[in-house]
Amino acid sequence: MAKAPVLTPQADDFPRWYQDLINKAELADNGPVRGTMVIRPYGYGLWERMQRELDDRIKEAGAANAYFPLFIPQSYLTREAEHVEGFAPELAVVTHGGGKELEEPVVVRPTSETIINEYFSKWVQSYRDLPLLINQWANVVRWEMRPRVFLRTSEFLWQEGHTAHATYEDAREYAARIHREVYADFMVNVLGIDVVLGRKTAKERFAGAINTLTLEGMMGDGKALQLGTSHELGQNFAKAFNTQYLSADGGRELVWQTSWGVSTRMVGGLIMSHGDDSGLRVPPRLAPVQAVVLAIKGEESVAAVRALGDKLKAAGIRVQVDDRVDVPFGRRAVDWELKGVPVRIEIGPRDLENGTAMLARRIPGGKEPVRAETLPETLPAILEEDQALLLQQSRERRESRTTEVTTLDEAAQAATAGGWARIPWAKLGPEGEAKLAEQAVSVRCLIAEDGSVPDADDAPGTVAIVARSY
Amino acid sequence: MAKAPVLTPQADDFPRWYQDLINKAELADNGPVRGTMVIRPYGYGLWERMQRELDDRIKEAGAANAYFPLFIPQSYLTREAEHVEGFAPELAVVTHGGGKELEEPVVVRPTSETIINEYFSKWVQSYRDLPLLINQWANVVRWEMRPRVFLRTSEFLWQEGHTAHATYEDAREYAARIHREVYADFMVNVLGIDVVLGRKTAKERFAGAINTLTLEGMMGDGKALQLGTSHELGQNFAKAFNTQYLSADGGRELVWQTSWGVSTRMVGGLIMSHGDDSGLRVPPRLAPVQAVVLAIKGEESVAAVRALGDKLKAAGIRVQVDDRVDVPFGRRAVDWELKGVPVRIEIGPRDLENGTAMLARRIPGGKEPVRAETLPETLPAILEEDQALLLQQSRERRESRTTEVTTLDEAAQAATAGGWARIPWAKLGPEGEAKLAEQAVSVRCLIAEDGSVPDADDAPGTVAIVARSY
Repeated sequence: MAKAPVLTPQADDFPRWYQDLINKAELADNGPVRGTMVIRPYGYGLWERMQRELDDRIKEAGAANAYFPLFIPQSYLTREAEHVEGFAPELAVVTHGGGKELEEPVVVRPTSETIINEYFSKWVQSYRDLPLLINQWANVVRWEMRPRVFLRTSEFLWQEGHTAHATYEDAREYAARIHREVYADFMVNVLGIDVVLGRKTAKERFAGAINTLTLEGMMGDGKALQLGTSHELGQNFAKAFNTQYLSADGGRELVWQTSWGVSTRMVGGLIMSHGDDSGLRVPPRLAPVQAVVLAIKGEESVAAVRALGDKLKAAGIRVQVDDRVDVPFGRRAVDWELKGVPVRIEIGPRDLENGTAMLARRIPGGKEPVRAETLPETLPAILEEDQALLLQQSRERRESRTTEVTTLDEAAQAATAGGWARIPWAKLGPEGEAKLAEQAVSVRCLIAEDGSVPDADDAPGTVAIVARSY
Repeated sequence: MAKAPVLTPQADDFPRWYQDLINKAELADNGPVRGTMVIRPYGYGLWERMQRELDDRIKEAGAANAYFPLFIPQSYLTREAEHVEGFAPELAVVTHGGGKELEEPVVVRPTSETIINEYFSKWVQSYRDLPLLINQWANVVRWEMRPRVFLRTSEFLWQEGHTAHATYEDAREYAARIHREVYADFMVNVLGIDVVLGRKTAKERFAGAINTLTLEGMMGDGKALQLGTSHELGQNFAKAFNTQYLSADGGRELVWQTSWGVSTRMVGGLIMSHGDDSGLRVPPRLAPVQAVVLAIKGEESVAAVRALGDKLKAAGIRVQVDDRVDVPFGRRAVDWELKGVPVRIEIGPRDLENGTAMLARRIPGGKEPVRAETLPETLPAILEEDQALLLQQSRERRESRTTEVTTLDEAAQAATAGGWARIPWAKLGPEGEAKLAEQAVSVRCLIAEDGSVPDADDAPGTVAIVARSY
């Protein structure tokens, strides 16, 4: 049975497929001010689940949530030279408040290192106060010239962690711990994205950091997306804000710091990792709705789906009942497919006679009749199977579309053809990186030969991952 | 054993006691931009628990979370005449973005009725799309001339619900449901504040509403604090934004709307309701830390508090272990008292010999030795007892400090003496209300004789609650 495509096919126009999906699955709209977005309930439900999973891991890593102001005095930004240079072109500036022109304009936070250090410098007195581990969930603003919903928006939602430590080693270890135990664990095991963990080159480092750790995912079109970063800030902000502590032996020392963040951009990454021509596919561990139970038609079906919904809820499954029998069944089925709900359970009059239900699985695809009464028991394993399948597909894509190369030209060719290249960093270096940039190709990260994160850019055997990116 | 007061006593200077408590319990700091605040981890922990409890109730009431942009085109605000008049003096205006002057300045949201209606008018097509029930957790900015931490800040955190309904009755019922089932249920049963539910007079109504429902609490000094509001917006914003739907019989109708919000101001209300001269007292159902287990000194005590902490956690209690035996015990005890943790369990070397622990209860006060092993079983009932006690004290204060009066002068006197007055609204009216305002006294709300919420200002038997307020 041929049907008209609901979305522009990925193969025809990937960016347009992405935008179609966001509109039709009702994930988000463009906001009225250029570059802003409205996150609709289903899209926000994805973000809420991301927040919950990350927040648990962040607290497990010992950090506590707090909240710092949206408005930062312009003068704070200028105290760390690289930082202001990096952010100045993207700032939104408030010049009027309460009907008057302000004496000093304030900027809307693009990130909070500066304002947080102003307080860290007050709160940190002695080595007993360290490590100080803070996180905040907040909106930030970076004026965006070429906005794209979820991926690049002038305002986005994120979490930003900020920590202060007594030693370089402790800060370094904590940045690595967040990278691995919070971000990678979440992205691999919940988002089902086979991210690569590496370090950024000097060119791609965060403005003000001495080292940036990154997580890079391969999207459906072979481009890379940076899904999160964890920075070692060294003592750069500590110097700028004089954040000192009294050491155990009575000396005054500058703290060592980290900062780290992930944002609503991950929603874009989720779509581009797992989506297909029928819409989104949401990994079950993330899904706000893991199973939808649809009544096809008739009052008795409605009663049956409600009863089954209750049983599935009792079995710990996040379930939604769709009993809108006044809306055509086909339209509802397509809609749930677009939204990527992992499992659809359909019940109509004939099923009631037979004690069956039709089980449609969004992730592997396919439909089969099942005994309705067995679902509360069988569904959890089915969902775990689907979770594993998405990660496997993500890994297979990355592996099959990554090419080992040894020259800059081969690397550029692999990237422009829609894939990743692996090239020894020694063969590329900062000069090669600059040449690739002319072709809109970048070094996404550096990794060690064994896949671990190298200690330095020039560690022997370091490999660069080269790609086009979002 | 006399000790120097940790805080300015309430009786000496209530506002200073409030500020002292916020500093010493490490709840918040003033931000660098006038009127903004930094919410520190313990203060934010209180807000997070408020969010969780409210979010559950909001979802139970059928609303879904979403997110609308921080920046609103200035022109949107002007579309509803009363609304812009109410908010214009408090707006923060962004005039520059991305290094350039903006063509149209944008305002930082003071509330989101306007931008939300812009989208409701697109999303709502037919009666099938109604009711549309949306909530968002967000920061908002209202430039504040006389800021006070948590109570009046230029930026604050809140939730704002926005709904659209097919009929006046449906909207009215939903505003009342939020008022009662979400807000009052949370404030009475979690915050332990014996709030009065009423309607605002025309003078005190939200700018753009046809009716404002409010929850008013009496603070420790007898003043009133508005803890939340739920508005019927009628069709005011629907007209301004042309938010229409196709009715079942094919006509085009304007929607009827509500909006409702509570904010970080509730943290201020919590402090001023339950705090005493030793610090905060946090109701157990809200408390991020319900019990702290302190090791007095010695390695064995440390092991014992960790083990007991695990047992209490397993019993479902939110517990924190304080094993910082290198910090003087007295200082730690005072600190937990300041933070208002309901139950403190202290274990020292002598307790280990006897299998005892010292149980200090912050809410009723007092200390007694108990068998340590019984605590996982006995503590839940103790916490519920403390929860009930706070509500009882809140109710007793309100009752004992509310005076029945029949004249404007008596009402003004009761309010300026630090209490509330109840006066028949027929004896006061808008003229009386204006006269009270000259003495900084206001009508907090109107209630029916039986304590319910009246249907109209002029319903027979309506009583006005008159007080000074924050």
